[in-house]
Amino acid sequence: MGVLKDQSRTLESYKDIFEDSLEQMVLQRMSSNADRPAMSIAKDVLLAGGKRYRPIMSMLGFKAAGGGDLAEIIDFAISAELLHTATLVHDDVYDQAKIRRGKPTIHMTHGISHAIIAGDYLFALGYEMGSRFGSEIIDRVGASCSRMASSEILQFKHINDLSTRPEDYYDIIDGKTAGPFATGGSSAAIIAGADREIVDSVWGFGMEIGRAFQLVDDLLDIIGDEGIGKPRGTDVHEGKMTLPIIYALTMLRGTERAELADVVTNFSDERLEELTRLLEKAGSFEYTRLLISNHIDRALEHSEVLPETNAKLLLIEIAELSRSRTS
Amino acid sequence: MGVLKDQSRTLESYKDIFEDSLEQMVLQRMSSNADRPAMSIAKDVLLAGGKRYRPIMSMLGFKAAGGGDLAEIIDFAISAELLHTATLVHDDVYDQAKIRRGKPTIHMTHGISHAIIAGDYLFALGYEMGSRFGSEIIDRVGASCSRMASSEILQFKHINDLSTRPEDYYDIIDGKTAGPFATGGSSAAIIAGADREIVDSVWGFGMEIGRAFQLVDDLLDIIGDEGIGKPRGTDVHEGKMTLPIIYALTMLRGTERAELADVVTNFSDERLEELTRLLEKAGSFEYTRLLISNHIDRALEHSEVLPETNAKLLLIEIAELSRSRTS
Repeated sequence: MGVLKDQSRTLESYKDIFEDSLEQMVLQRMSSNADRPAMSIAKDVLLAGGKRYRPIMSMLGFKAAGGGDLAEIIDFAISAELLHTATLVHDDVYDQAKIRRGKPTIHMTHGISHAIIAGDYLFALGYEMGSRFGSEIIDRVGASCSRMASSEILQFKHINDLSTRPEDYYDIIDGKTAGPFATGGSSAAIIAGADREIVDSVWGFGMEIGRAFQLVDDLLDIIGDEGIGKPRGTDVHEGKMTLPIIYALTMLRGTERAELADVVTNFSDERLEELTRLLEKAGSFEYTRLLISNHIDRALEHSEVLPETNAKLLLIEIAELSRSRTS
Repeated sequence: MGVLKDQSRTLESYKDIFEDSLEQMVLQRMSSNADRPAMSIAKDVLLAGGKRYRPIMSMLGFKAAGGGDLAEIIDFAISAELLHTATLVHDDVYDQAKIRRGKPTIHMTHGISHAIIAGDYLFALGYEMGSRFGSEIIDRVGASCSRMASSEILQFKHINDLSTRPEDYYDIIDGKTAGPFATGGSSAAIIAGADREIVDSVWGFGMEIGRAFQLVDDLLDIIGDEGIGKPRGTDVHEGKMTLPIIYALTMLRGTERAELADVVTNFSDERLEELTRLLEKAGSFEYTRLLISNHIDRALEHSEVLPETNAKLLLIEIAELSRSRTS
């Protein structure tokens, strides 16, 4: 993980470094009697890939903020992925999801009890590995995780709530998705020893990129995408008020509004085309793409204060990826 | 929380100090937008009482090891209770328990999703508050939580497993109950600045007292006790191989052994007397009381190196309490 190769690294090579380190950590835990029973259950979903945007965001935030050897940040990157995977495992239990990262979910293969415990184990490991970076990091990660839990509760309050406002939506996704991105990146910048301006800009970049990611996911849930790893319409099935739906509920009038309300609250796979037609009519897709583009632009503005490094270019590349994923 | 009153404090006054501090922490979190949604769900079980042995163990471990003002340890004590309560909330989900600390469980009142998230929130808070005490404490708490998850998985492996050995039982309860007691006490001793001999003796005391507590709980699950806060026979319903049952399965022969195997694997409330009669016949209650007594004696031996303080006397009082709870 030497500094010499930094200028030639691609997103793919950062991902490779992360995957190798993650695998090593898992192997090490598997050799301990105290960890093996829990890790045996948890390791499959952890090693099943996924986009790894959170740990890569930490690694790039570290380098872009002037950090040295990646070995200094790798445990924090692993911690970010552990905490993220823990929430996925638990989400899947109460969402009754069957597939995650292309594989059967733990509660499907081992039952709810094992899925809850495996998630708890991943949380424990994530907090343990993250806490070692000192009190400022503990503050940030703690606040992020508390807010994440609160956002999940808020999200439930708005299930099938047709009066959900865009502010409610942003309140939820800022806690659930954008906050962890911002926390991961800015904590990594702190670990790199960066000054406040740099830390804040990586925070801002993470927030905006996280919002863009969530909006992309919401859009792809409806228009479909092979890479998303879950069936089309999953969010709608769960009654989640995503932005494309919130927007259409505001824009449509009369019978079309009534039809949309009915599709959303009585959703089935057969009504996916009907939903798509109504959202198209409302201009939801166009509007959501515009919002995504705005968030990416703001992320890029935040990145402007960062010194010119290869890591900065890769952060910009990640931002632009979101724009292309939905077009 | 000044030192002047230390010599006159009772277990009850330690508990009062803890309850006050816990309430203050909850109020503070409730005033934050980022915490309120999750804390609103989690606070009832947290404030519903319980024996508070874990935080009291930490407070006493701190004082017995030469610690100063209780204010220095109180966040760690709260952290111990948060982590413990988090596991209870999650255990109750997959055990489908209806009552905890005399109140309906979260998953009964708010559904499985909210119970899982509330548990995750309590974990987050517990790790955050505990991590601030530095890397040696993070090591201990992290190892304890990892092992706790593994023990829960092991416990499931032995559900209805009539060949479960006493070693398996101790492997499970050492991770699930005794380890957290030992971790809480010994971490508190480290925070107090104690030397290795004192830290190790508080660790040993915690392990033995934790084993005694678990054996008492296992015994009371069968013989009944109003203070235990859950219906009699809960463990047997869940197929848990507790020591009284493991012992009886070894001691009984022929038709009695067959009858016991049948009672355990096809348990219903009506068979509680039948189970009690068989365990009585096998000498399980007597044997379990003997084990409890042995663990308490060993705990007291560990306490011998501690300097003569009021806190030490209270640790001894806690140990003796376990002996009296089952007689």
